[in-house]
Amino acid sequence: MNQKLFFSGLIVMFALSAAGHYFHFGNTLQFIISAIAIIFVAGFLGKATESVAHYAGQRLGGFLNATFGNAAELIIAIFLIRARQFEMVKASLTGAIIGNLLLVLGLSVLLGGLKYKEQRFNNRLAEHNATLMIMAVIGLFVPAVFVVSERFTFDQDQFLSLAVAGILIVSYILWLVFSMITHKDMLADEVMTADHGEAPAWSKGKSIIYLVVATVMVAFVSEWLVHTLDAFSEQFGLSELFIGAFVIAIVGNAAEHSAAVLLAMKNKIGAAVEIAIGSSLQIALFVAPVLILVSAMFGNTMDIVFTPIELTAIGVSVFIAKSVSRDGQTNWYEGVLLLMVYVILGIAFYLV
Amino acid sequence: MNQKLFFSGLIVMFALSAAGHYFHFGNTLQFIISAIAIIFVAGFLGKATESVAHYAGQRLGGFLNATFGNAAELIIAIFLIRARQFEMVKASLTGAIIGNLLLVLGLSVLLGGLKYKEQRFNNRLAEHNATLMIMAVIGLFVPAVFVVSERFTFDQDQFLSLAVAGILIVSYILWLVFSMITHKDMLADEVMTADHGEAPAWSKGKSIIYLVVATVMVAFVSEWLVHTLDAFSEQFGLSELFIGAFVIAIVGNAAEHSAAVLLAMKNKIGAAVEIAIGSSLQIALFVAPVLILVSAMFGNTMDIVFTPIELTAIGVSVFIAKSVSRDGQTNWYEGVLLLMVYVILGIAFYLV
Amino acid sequence: MNQKLFFSGLIVMFALSAAGHYFHFGNTLQFIISAIAIIFVAGFLGKATESVAHYAGQRLGGFLNATFGNAAELIIAIFLIRARQFEMVKASLTGAIIGNLLLVLGLSVLLGGLKYKEQRFNNRLAEHNATLMIMAVIGLFVPAVFVVSERFTFDQDQFLSLAVAGILIVSYILWLVFSMITHKDMLADEVMTADHGEAPAWSKGKSIIYLVVATVMVAFVSEWLVHTLDAFSEQFGLSELFIGAFVIAIVGNAAEHSAAVLLAMKNKIGAAVEIAIGSSLQIALFVAPVLILVSAMFGNTMDIVFTPIELTAIGVSVFIAKSVSRDGQTNWYEGVLLLMVYVILGIAFYLV
Repeated sequence: MNQKLFFSGLIVMFALSAAGHYFHFGNTLQFIISAIAIIFVAGFLGKATESVAHYAGQRLGGFLNATFGNAAELIIAIFLIRARQFEMVKASLTGAIIGNLLLVLGLSVLLGGLKYKEQRFNNRLAEHNATLMIMAVIGLFVPAVFVVSERFTFDQDQFLSLAVAGILIVSYILWLVFSMITHKDMLADEVMTADHGEAPAWSKGKSIIYLVVATVMVAFVSEWLVHTLDAFSEQFGLSELFIGAFVIAIVGNAAEHSAAVLLAMKNKIGAAVEIAIGSSLQIALFVAPVLILVSAMFGNTMDIVFTPIELTAIGVSVFIAKSVSRDGQTNWYEGVLLLMVYVILGIAFYLV
Repeated sequence: MNQKLFFSGLIVMFALSAAGHYFHFGNTLQFIISAIAIIFVAGFLGKATESVAHYAGQRLGGFLNATFGNAAELIIAIFLIRARQFEMVKASLTGAIIGNLLLVLGLSVLLGGLKYKEQRFNNRLAEHNATLMIMAVIGLFVPAVFVVSERFTFDQDQFLSLAVAGILIVSYILWLVFSMITHKDMLADEVMTADHGEAPAWSKGKSIIYLVVATVMVAFVSEWLVHTLDAFSEQFGLSELFIGAFVIAIVGNAAEHSAAVLLAMKNKIGAAVEIAIGSSLQIALFVAPVLILVSAMFGNTMDIVFTPIELTAIGVSVFIAKSVSRDGQTNWYEGVLLLMVYVILGIAFYLV
Repeated sequence: MNQKLFFSGLIVMFALSAAGHYFHFGNTLQFIISAIAIIFVAGFLGKATESVAHYAGQRLGGFLNATFGNAAELIIAIFLIRARQFEMVKASLTGAIIGNLLLVLGLSVLLGGLKYKEQRFNNRLAEHNATLMIMAVIGLFVPAVFVVSERFTFDQDQFLSLAVAGILIVSYILWLVFSMITHKDMLADEVMTADHGEAPAWSKGKSIIYLVVATVMVAFVSEWLVHTLDAFSEQFGLSELFIGAFVIAIVGNAAEHSAAVLLAMKNKIGAAVEIAIGSSLQIALFVAPVLILVSAMFGNTMDIVFTPIELTAIGVSVFIAKSVSRDGQTNWYEGVLLLMVYVILGIAFYLV
């Protein structure tokens, strides 16, 4: 998108969203405006992060991208946690994971596959990602089984949640050490430091200022959006689960999603796969456990126990994404399968 | 089998089965006669389909084989649906899937492996089939989890079942487009259009007439067989589940089963694997959802919710079949493992 | 370890353990002494088995190693069965499986990986092992699903358990036939007959005598250890599950564990992987079903129904071990992931 146009849209939507909040527009209108504003401010934050990462050099830059790539998602979730909307936080985490693995990966593979008969990428990385995805699923799955089938007390539940959160974060940090320090040369260039589309041509100073401004903007719009959710969900008879898993997850990741699809259509399917799978790994191994710790600091620990249908959604997404990406080749039909699974889950969550 | 002998057997068993039905033979006798008759008429239908497919040219022929390869199974199930034996329909679908993945594949791999130390086949196709199998499992698994753990109402259950059925059929049709049109050249010749044994040397006109006659014969014998099931299951204390999953599934697929085993023993293990896995995919992605739609047309929608033990049976079969076929090599011991799992499931279903 | 030192330790700990038992030391002291004694006597039994196997020739030797490699584990479990501690038996089997797949494999991969950037091994064997591990999981998983969701009676439960135990043992015997007779040449030398470290330089006669003596010593110390368990678990507020799965499993396999880690550090990662995965397969496909049959001979059949959390622990261990070993390459980070899953399970079991 043209940069001037983007900034105009960004400022207009931010202002409209602020106006909606302070002048009490109707709930639905407020929700729609804030949702569109989130797409813009999250996109802005993503671009600013990339630009700062660009100046920070390969290693630190890779780290920044890996850590703050889902900053918008994280900020929205923190406001949800402050509002004690724990169920919606977990639904939005679920939605972000399946959105990346099914919608983003599916669209990338489908649209890339319609243009190129077969697209190939380094499946050495896919192997590593597969093991990490299994780790992520285990980290979310084990607490649910133990807490439910052993009828854990509140304290046991909290302790296990904090412990698992800590272990997942340590695993994530060690993964950064592995992929950026000890075994950097063995993984494709695509990893982490991937060129996620055209980097904006901002100066170093400007990039840093933009990063700060974007973060603040995301924080404001997130709060305004969170305020509208209850009324909106009531008005349209939508469950918290559906809003969290499909609405919030999609608007919070829209910018990243479009980047992946555009890369796939330029035959850079490896980078698209890396964005989609890397982002979902980041959510499961870093964002989710950080939110557990943040909630504990707020004095009211959110547990890491996802519901059976959330775990099912995550589990089936990981399985089919793993199966599609395993051989380092993609075609349009694999994109169709990913999207079909997304539609099935969407209908099922809508009916809940 | 000698063709003359086959036709004699076909006519004799059909006549005996009709006599049994109209002159009210004992229930057990009627059941046994109809079961043997089904093996003959289903075999006849299979041969007629292949012969028509042969004249229809490669593309349309492949489509016919892919769509009507399980026609006998489909017709039997339609009569079960008309009799509102929904549980038995689902049990017979389960049985057809696990019968193909464990019994047919297991016998083919074992007997082929006893003759040839190692058999190899194109595992490019196995990769694709693996992803489709995962799609099939997801399609059957997701509704069960949502309906049970979210306590869906009857209406929600029906809506989800119809929606998932529609999505599975669309996936199946797009798979035909992929494998027969857009990526035909990339998959092995074995796919779909596989030479499933010696094609009968019938003229074009004869083939079409035979197809019509065979379909009518299957329909009649299916009805006669369905009539005997209640009394038979009561007399021998067998559960509907066991009869559906092991008896009906085996007699309905016997002809196809023997074709696969014979191919494996001629060292055409790839074709045998394709029959076994392709047939189970067809059941899960095409026959099962078509039956949901057929039941809706009869005014009494059968839902797509399988029981935990049926899903377990399907899930474990897919996992072990995927593991065995993944590397494009088979040996006798892998056949043993598949058959052992079949025996475990058989005993467990028998005890229910 | 220096052999003289080892024998001194062995005799001292055995004597102390006997003294503790007969002169009624405090429970905790008795427990600690017996636990250390088990490490020594189990190590002695392992060495004696290997030495006898060495003289028995490759085929019979491989069979001995494969069958009696977990003899110490088996003997401890038999004493637990005599004491009707069925829950602790199943917990210790679970612990032995996950201990091998996560702790032993994890430490081997991590420590080997810290020394060598990347370690490689024959992944032909890994493929076979993966299929066998899936078979093992199915054998333990199917009875649990059927018994629980179909509310099997006591008799149905017993019948299914004995049948599945028989099938698993037959599968295991046929695996020995496959890997040692019919397809011996196709699998790596690492299989079964692997050189598990430096073989002790004992004469043939001495080896046999040592084997008998070691077996008797394990039997005695096992009984003394089992006697202390109730009091010990009560005193420290540890569940039977935790003691079985983590304490007994670790002390019973300590010698084998250290052998695997030492091999990995000598860059023989293939042999280390084979010990870890081969040992867990032996537990699941041979030791567990033999214990079912042994309990039946004692007149009180232990069923093969594991709890949901035990099955979860086994299932996730198999999945991540399969994912790590699948590509025939390992690095330190994969070791970290295995150990992290072990820690998560350890905490969860501790909290139960």
